[in-house]
Amino acid sequence: MFVTFLSDFGLRDDFVGTCHGVIAQIAPEARVIDITHGIEPQAVLQGALVLASTLPYMPQGVHLAVVDPGVGGRRRAVCVRDREGRLHVGPDNGLLVLALERFGGAEAAWELTSSEYRLERVSMTFHGRDVFAPAAAHLARGVDPSALGPPLEPRSLVRLEVPEPELGERRLRATVLSADRFGNVQLNVSREHLERIGIEVGGRVELERGGERFYALAARTFADARSGDVILYEDAYENLALAITGGSAAELLGVRPGEQLQIAAAG
Amino acid sequence: MFVTFLSDFGLRDDFVGTCHGVIAQIAPEARVIDITHGIEPQAVLQGALVLASTLPYMPQGVHLAVVDPGVGGRRRAVCVRDREGRLHVGPDNGLLVLALERFGGAEAAWELTSSEYRLERVSMTFHGRDVFAPAAAHLARGVDPSALGPPLEPRSLVRLEVPEPELGERRLRATVLSADRFGNVQLNVSREHLERIGIEVGGRVELERGGERFYALAARTFADARSGDVILYEDAYENLALAITGGSAAELLGVRPGEQLQIAAAG
Amino acid sequence: MFVTFLSDFGLRDDFVGTCHGVIAQIAPEARVIDITHGIEPQAVLQGALVLASTLPYMPQGVHLAVVDPGVGGRRRAVCVRDREGRLHVGPDNGLLVLALERFGGAEAAWELTSSEYRLERVSMTFHGRDVFAPAAAHLARGVDPSALGPPLEPRSLVRLEVPEPELGERRLRATVLSADRFGNVQLNVSREHLERIGIEVGGRVELERGGERFYALAARTFADARSGDVILYEDAYENLALAITGGSAAELLGVRPGEQLQIAAAG
Repeated sequence: MFVTFLSDFGLRDDFVGTCHGVIAQIAPEARVIDITHGIEPQAVLQGALVLASTLPYMPQGVHLAVVDPGVGGRRRAVCVRDREGRLHVGPDNGLLVLALERFGGAEAAWELTSSEYRLERVSMTFHGRDVFAPAAAHLARGVDPSALGPPLEPRSLVRLEVPEPELGERRLRATVLSADRFGNVQLNVSREHLERIGIEVGGRVELERGGERFYALAARTFADARSGDVILYEDAYENLALAITGGSAAELLGVRPGEQLQIAAAG
Repeated sequence: MFVTFLSDFGLRDDFVGTCHGVIAQIAPEARVIDITHGIEPQAVLQGALVLASTLPYMPQGVHLAVVDPGVGGRRRAVCVRDREGRLHVGPDNGLLVLALERFGGAEAAWELTSSEYRLERVSMTFHGRDVFAPAAAHLARGVDPSALGPPLEPRSLVRLEVPEPELGERRLRATVLSADRFGNVQLNVSREHLERIGIEVGGRVELERGGERFYALAARTFADARSGDVILYEDAYENLALAITGGSAAELLGVRPGEQLQIAAAG
Repeated sequence: MFVTFLSDFGLRDDFVGTCHGVIAQIAPEARVIDITHGIEPQAVLQGALVLASTLPYMPQGVHLAVVDPGVGGRRRAVCVRDREGRLHVGPDNGLLVLALERFGGAEAAWELTSSEYRLERVSMTFHGRDVFAPAAAHLARGVDPSALGPPLEPRSLVRLEVPEPELGERRLRATVLSADRFGNVQLNVSREHLERIGIEVGGRVELERGGERFYALAARTFADARSGDVILYEDAYENLALAITGGSAAELLGVRPGEQLQIAAAG
């Protein structure tokens, strides 16, 4: 049985390795796939977006996710079964909800309260190790989710505000969702949004941010542009993104997650 | 059989992957759990502390650890069996000793000298690959540790100086052990130390560093404080640590491993 | 069956984890060894050098490598079988060729064009996920490489320019290949090159870079020098490298990959 694992733990500390150890103690046969642990610290929205983008590429199994700024407080710890039978484990802070939608939504949910399926001593600050990893491991070895705690109403799961682009007649205001290692900048914009403001592949695009203007080419891939050109392209997860062939768009444009950009057809 | 693996190799280079390859060649069935490879370069004390904190969460097996500033010099390469039967492999520079104490101490030890259980060509600078990973892999496939080299006296293992807090009547001087990805700052202080100087959960704490004063709340978890507050809390490994709800205490306080802080009850 | 995996994807994003998921969906029994994902973005030469250095330490299997600045353009996606029977999968941009030479060279090669062995939807920018990982996974579960696409002439594989040192009578001009986490600086120089200009272990070495002069000791290992000394040594992959005992040579010397240094015997 596979356990996939996404978190904001990073790989500098032992947080991820310790959770792997806990899973191996409980479910020695389980195999863990680390989706990523590079979610920005406590960035629940980024975690939810990456989880939703990547789970369709993961084998069916138990899907553990921990981005948990409210650890030790009153947020619930939950297990959710989606309509395709996948089991999702994590904090009830919106982290899981976008991924659940990819699989038909939540079919049933339980709160992780049973002390039998936690570590003996539960710390106030590391529920990844003490609550979530043990729950995922017990599920992976076949424990029924109903053993982990009382059922809860799927509709009661905390929802998440996903920023929508503001669509004008010939322009739109986009929000930067993230920037990756290559300096590519992901926007909350789909190809349909671009088409509605009259931008098509091959066309020129005007970007404005804080009074500054940049120009980009609407392209299909990096190879369509010359080195140094900014391109606006549909990325591998079908989000629109900005890139510079042979450079870092995030650096050149100086944008950070949460910031806004105006996009319009140029000329 | 599990092999756990901790080092200061980082994940930017191939050092860790190459050791995984060597283990897989010798013991294809062994499963490796990476505890962390983010120990600061050559920080033997930090490695020893993290190893001692995390091994109790690892399945029993062979425990490989490499933080090895003396590679190629005269320090010994060793295998140590603790009183619970776990096997520890690494350099004899103090890296293993705190973890051994968690399992009753060293019961027997051997020096890794047998050329049969090293790679054919042993480099001067990468014993992780050429000596330690092969030894761990051979142990994982069932080789008896006595085959790896001559026994050595467990009491001859190199010890490690762990900084102790200096306890005054109403204040103590703490040493910073490390800072994690979230900017939480680990101190060489336990809850008992705090109680002895009259600090209890809910109380206010005065911190002084290089003439500068900061104030913190003695709290149980992040959720007990408002965003931006500094808290002093017992972390998931039962060390006292400093954190800022929604921020980086390491950055705000500007502290680095090895530095000292004075702690006292405030007002 | 083992699949080894090297890339420039880094571990901050989900690229590596997503490829692991794709492999697990297609070949659940395959075990993936991550050689490294820390190759500098789009640094094909560095990737080729690391792959050639490390594959001899990997168990025989399918060897997946992705450093792919030309993704979505006209470069070919290929599978190559070397003369020892290992299968290499990656872009045809020179990334694989140095590793192939370690195993007798390419014996046969195929272009990865069969849609049956790609993901259903192939993006323009993430062939690691959509083309290369699926091909590696299908090979790992026993698919014959000839099923993946038409054979191609091994001699048609793109070659790679590896910088050679410029040898003078008493000096040589070296190129910096890379710098690792410990600040050790790898040069395109072998022990034979040094001997030809009269430098032997124990001798003093003069380094010149942009008019600045440094002095180093030709040594066997870090332990041969005092803390703070620069040493020139043969590293664990038999390349000459610069290091500082207890410090970062890359930082002190301020060198970056691609830069040149002049080396001569001192005094």
